[in-house]
Amino acid sequence: MKSIKIGLIGFGNVGSAIFDVFNRNADLINNRLRVNLKLAAISIRNLDKAKLISDKTITVYPDPFQLIYSDVDIVIEVIGGIDIAKKIVEKAIQNKKHVVTANKELIAIHGKELLQLAKENGVLLLYEAAVGGGIPIIKSLREGLSANKIEWVAGIINGTTNYILTEMQRSRGEFSQALQQAIKKGYAEKDPTFDIEGIDAAHKLAIIASLCFDIDIQYDKVFCEGIANIELKDIDYAKKFGYAIKLLGIAKRRKEGLELRVHPSLVPIDSMIANIDLAMNGILVFGDAVGPTLHYGAGAGGEPTASSILADVMDAVRFNLLGGNNLIRTGSVGTSVSDKRILLIDDTRTSYYLRMRVRDQVGVMADVTQILAAQFISIEAMFQGEPLDSKDRAEVVIITHQTIEKNINTAIMQIENLHVVDGSVKLLRIESLEFS
Amino acid sequence: MKSIKIGLIGFGNVGSAIFDVFNRNADLINNRLRVNLKLAAISIRNLDKAKLISDKTITVYPDPFQLIYSDVDIVIEVIGGIDIAKKIVEKAIQNKKHVVTANKELIAIHGKELLQLAKENGVLLLYEAAVGGGIPIIKSLREGLSANKIEWVAGIINGTTNYILTEMQRSRGEFSQALQQAIKKGYAEKDPTFDIEGIDAAHKLAIIASLCFDIDIQYDKVFCEGIANIELKDIDYAKKFGYAIKLLGIAKRRKEGLELRVHPSLVPIDSMIANIDLAMNGILVFGDAVGPTLHYGAGAGGEPTASSILADVMDAVRFNLLGGNNLIRTGSVGTSVSDKRILLIDDTRTSYYLRMRVRDQVGVMADVTQILAAQFISIEAMFQGEPLDSKDRAEVVIITHQTIEKNINTAIMQIENLHVVDGSVKLLRIESLEFS
Repeated sequence: MKSIKIGLIGFGNVGSAIFDVFNRNADLINNRLRVNLKLAAISIRNLDKAKLISDKTITVYPDPFQLIYSDVDIVIEVIGGIDIAKKIVEKAIQNKKHVVTANKELIAIHGKELLQLAKENGVLLLYEAAVGGGIPIIKSLREGLSANKIEWVAGIINGTTNYILTEMQRSRGEFSQALQQAIKKGYAEKDPTFDIEGIDAAHKLAIIASLCFDIDIQYDKVFCEGIANIELKDIDYAKKFGYAIKLLGIAKRRKEGLELRVHPSLVPIDSMIANIDLAMNGILVFGDAVGPTLHYGAGAGGEPTASSILADVMDAVRFNLLGGNNLIRTGSVGTSVSDKRILLIDDTRTSYYLRMRVRDQVGVMADVTQILAAQFISIEAMFQGEPLDSKDRAEVVIITHQTIEKNINTAIMQIENLHVVDGSVKLLRIESLEFS
Repeated sequence: MKSIKIGLIGFGNVGSAIFDVFNRNADLINNRLRVNLKLAAISIRNLDKAKLISDKTITVYPDPFQLIYSDVDIVIEVIGGIDIAKKIVEKAIQNKKHVVTANKELIAIHGKELLQLAKENGVLLLYEAAVGGGIPIIKSLREGLSANKIEWVAGIINGTTNYILTEMQRSRGEFSQALQQAIKKGYAEKDPTFDIEGIDAAHKLAIIASLCFDIDIQYDKVFCEGIANIELKDIDYAKKFGYAIKLLGIAKRRKEGLELRVHPSLVPIDSMIANIDLAMNGILVFGDAVGPTLHYGAGAGGEPTASSILADVMDAVRFNLLGGNNLIRTGSVGTSVSDKRILLIDDTRTSYYLRMRVRDQVGVMADVTQILAAQFISIEAMFQGEPLDSKDRAEVVIITHQTIEKNINTAIMQIENLHVVDGSVKLLRIESLEFS
């Protein structure tokens, strides 16, 4: 049986899980591939951790670049970040190693050039673990649903924010409390900026969109809004109208162009997406032939990520090392993107949730609805709450029918200028997730 | 660009959908594969239908065997059944054509020998469309989750029965009414035996299990029980205890051996599986590294099936025609199965729902519970209904803790022998779907 060597760079949570899962399932993996796959080298900076590798057949390198220049066939990069990681991936590719990574930031920002480099060097750059943790979503988009024209994708692709939104609802707490709980439970980093501002989800959406629409990975074109300004009362009002609030990554094909956006979204409360709770991920994909499919599982964590990393390693073995042609579609290197305009957020077409604080007096609603009508925005539902603390103020929530976002923005500006409206109008987008 | 020819055998609902989807998305498919994939030949028995193919570059053969001996590279078989279909697939393989099929019955019953034949002839036999319609579940098991030891699978893999069970609940009707509705709406065949008796699901489960456990496809070892004896009151009682009733295909790895069974199951009412309604399919897979993943989508229908058929065609192109090695794991040809004993249904270990009709008098429950205790079966919950039509009879429902099925069967025999119990005890199995 052919012998194939893997080198692992990084030995944190994910790296050590890869080590564990591979050791546990090596027989099964080798039997499935009919090769002798061997974890031959690990790069670990921390010398104490390095001592934990008792298997003397594994070479431990303190310097990742030494590993790259060794005789491994496949390099796994799980150190994260984009500075050293980029250099490692580049050098590995240039040194004709296949590269498997879980690094969504790296792929979102530098994926286009790295995939081009891999193509030039005749090796694979695979990144299943970068999106949806253990869910085989990249493979499903790239291969399983590959005969479809993908119409849209709407996914919960960040576990931290999903945990926080679930926790707010279950414990009836505000965002800051739920965030503290998420940090305490290990679902959020101490600096949670990347997650709560939607940046992590936007990285993943850029990657998903490249496969759905045969475009380059274009993180800079993704609109991104986080969840820090979601209040418990928004969750409660949404529920009153039959919606739950989830941070979604949305990629949608319209005849005018592509929508790529990450933001908190109202989704029908009885939809499957609405019922994906805590740190789980779920990606709803709508293809022209297959219709809707949902791909659900753990979006993060050591072993789920290891599951995807090792699946990519197995793909690299199957498709290439044993004589295959380098044909895994990893993005859309070389595809013309000229006819795939990515729309600005102003051009988004959806329905909206508006919450505002108004003077509790006759005629206010007439003023507001008149402004909406002038922008051709029709109202689906409206709710006026009890008077607020300051007795002469009340809160009004409006659900609109579909319209273009710039019309909503014009209307909001005019509503905020009404002297009977206090402060700013809160806007949230609604996704019907309708299958057509 | 290399030119590759497809031949399509069968032009019913699925065949014509394949024709439509391929024609609609040929540019996209060819761009993704960077080949010139061409639907070159179709075999249609019905001469009137054959006239509908106006594209003169497509050769129409009335005889499928003529198509097989033409110069196509890949043969799609979608005529169904197992007699002619088997001969077609065999001849195509022997004639060095890759074969893609949606024929679950053929693969479940003859898959082992056909896969062996394909291996000997150096071609692929692919069958994504045979399980879960458009859901890429075969690919996920074979590749995406391939580094996992799969612990168990529980899936709604038959749309007809899921539609009937949903309809019974929504319309508060009995099985026979819901079946009529399913036939009327086109979700059930006029002879619905294969679906309602669980045979179709058992075919699919045998295929799933072969990939999960690296065993041969062994349809004859799958325990199979249909839904015809589910009454509306079972659905109502189940709900009282927090369960919904679904026809599940279950494959489970236990240290004693493998459980392979299809039967109506009580599942927690707030689980995702419980909320997969109408004709949709969903397969919950639990892998040792990835944890739980759910794969949801349309389990039948022309275009969803075409989506999977064409994905397989694209795999055949990617992995083989362009110089790849024949390495798609299509079952487990050649794997030793000696240590994978498939358990009898008597050895199943789960918890149970028991419904019985008893005389409404003091001491009856003591008799029943004593019998259960003697078989070491502990009771989780019990419910005694209002007296039935014949005033001196009442219905009792018992939910047990986990036990081995033969103990339950012994207890049921003894309970049925009690003179205070009328008729037979109804048994349904419960699946906790717990993630451990």
